[in-house]
Amino acid sequence: MNFEQLQKQIVFIHEIDKIKYIQRKTRLFNSDRAENDAEHSWHLALMAIVLSEHSDQKIDLLKVVKMLLIHDLVEIDAGDVFLYDTVANHTNTEAELAAARRIFGLLPAAQADDLIAVWEEFEAGETAESKFARAMDRMEPLLQNRSNSGGTWQEFNVKYDKVLEKKSVIREGSQHLWNYAKALIDQSVEDGILQK
Amino acid sequence: MNFEQLQKQIVFIHEIDKIKYIQRKTRLFNSDRAENDAEHSWHLALMAIVLSEHSDQKIDLLKVVKMLLIHDLVEIDAGDVFLYDTVANHTNTEAELAAARRIFGLLPAAQADDLIAVWEEFEAGETAESKFARAMDRMEPLLQNRSNSGGTWQEFNVKYDKVLEKKSVIREGSQHLWNYAKALIDQSVEDGILQK
Repeated sequence: MNFEQLQKQIVFIHEIDKIKYIQRKTRLFNSDRAENDAEHSWHLALMAIVLSEHSDQKIDLLKVVKMLLIHDLVEIDAGDVFLYDTVANHTNTEAELAAARRIFGLLPAAQADDLIAVWEEFEAGETAESKFARAMDRMEPLLQNRSNSGGTWQEFNVKYDKVLEKKSVIREGSQHLWNYAKALIDQSVEDGILQK
Repeated sequence: MNFEQLQKQIVFIHEIDKIKYIQRKTRLFNSDRAENDAEHSWHLALMAIVLSEHSDQKIDLLKVVKMLLIHDLVEIDAGDVFLYDTVANHTNTEAELAAARRIFGLLPAAQADDLIAVWEEFEAGETAESKFARAMDRMEPLLQNRSNSGGTWQEFNVKYDKVLEKKSVIREGSQHLWNYAKALIDQSVEDGILQK
């Protein structure tokens, strides 16, 4: 029996377990326990399935789910950068590209190329699928912060205008979800959990 | 703006966060930290994507991924039953069905019906998609136990014949993966981390 191809896939499956140790700044719903990247990725993938009807454009849902399941794997090498970090750049850095090449590179070559391309498409945010996937990535922490009396907005003194700017990514994927998100953000000011 | 449909979906998205607190018996790779159901579901979904070529039958990969992302949600109400538990029945119990109806029932009716059907299909294990999904569910803890010097096999005194019986589910989804899994199980006896 030839397990050569499979053995590479198993090495990858083993390696990605490390994402379970990468802590995000955002906390679970109604909780002070930080979320890790595996939990976050699971939640986004299932959100995409449940919310797909709200995408403004027709989307290949399997591709969206793939994007969301793998989008944070580069953080195994490159670490998590907080969305509101004012120093580090939360975009496609050299370190993340090197991480993508190393981690996906554990897979058989064709499969590695395919997943690197999916990851790059997510990062670029230009296709319908990546726009919807990125909307999910902005939506979850908004809901979490709402449930945690402001959560990271309070903890890191993030103001309304900055939240609106970062969350407006949701609009590129879904006008309907953006209308809802915008209403939640405005409500957060009224509730006193987000400062103008 | 009418957010009625969306509001139900958001309630569901909020509710399923609870799966992040449900601890499995199996531990992370090379670790003594128990895995939770969200991490487990994330890992299985990505395993299905990476290993799909090994399915014996043609599969709808999106459906497989959906199954794996939702398969443990019923444990929010019904709790985790250890695979090798000799008292509790690790099959579709009344408690699990009631849990499925309550949790998926938070969604708009058509969507709830769809996901309950997907969950039931997984539990029944009769279609190509459910067979492959169930193979993933057996494969991950096998790899984890291998990495943890026997892990739950040692901890709960589970013997070779029982492991072989439970893991043979993998064969229904993929002969190739089963050949690999069987070799790992046999190797575990040779390595002294699984008793005959």
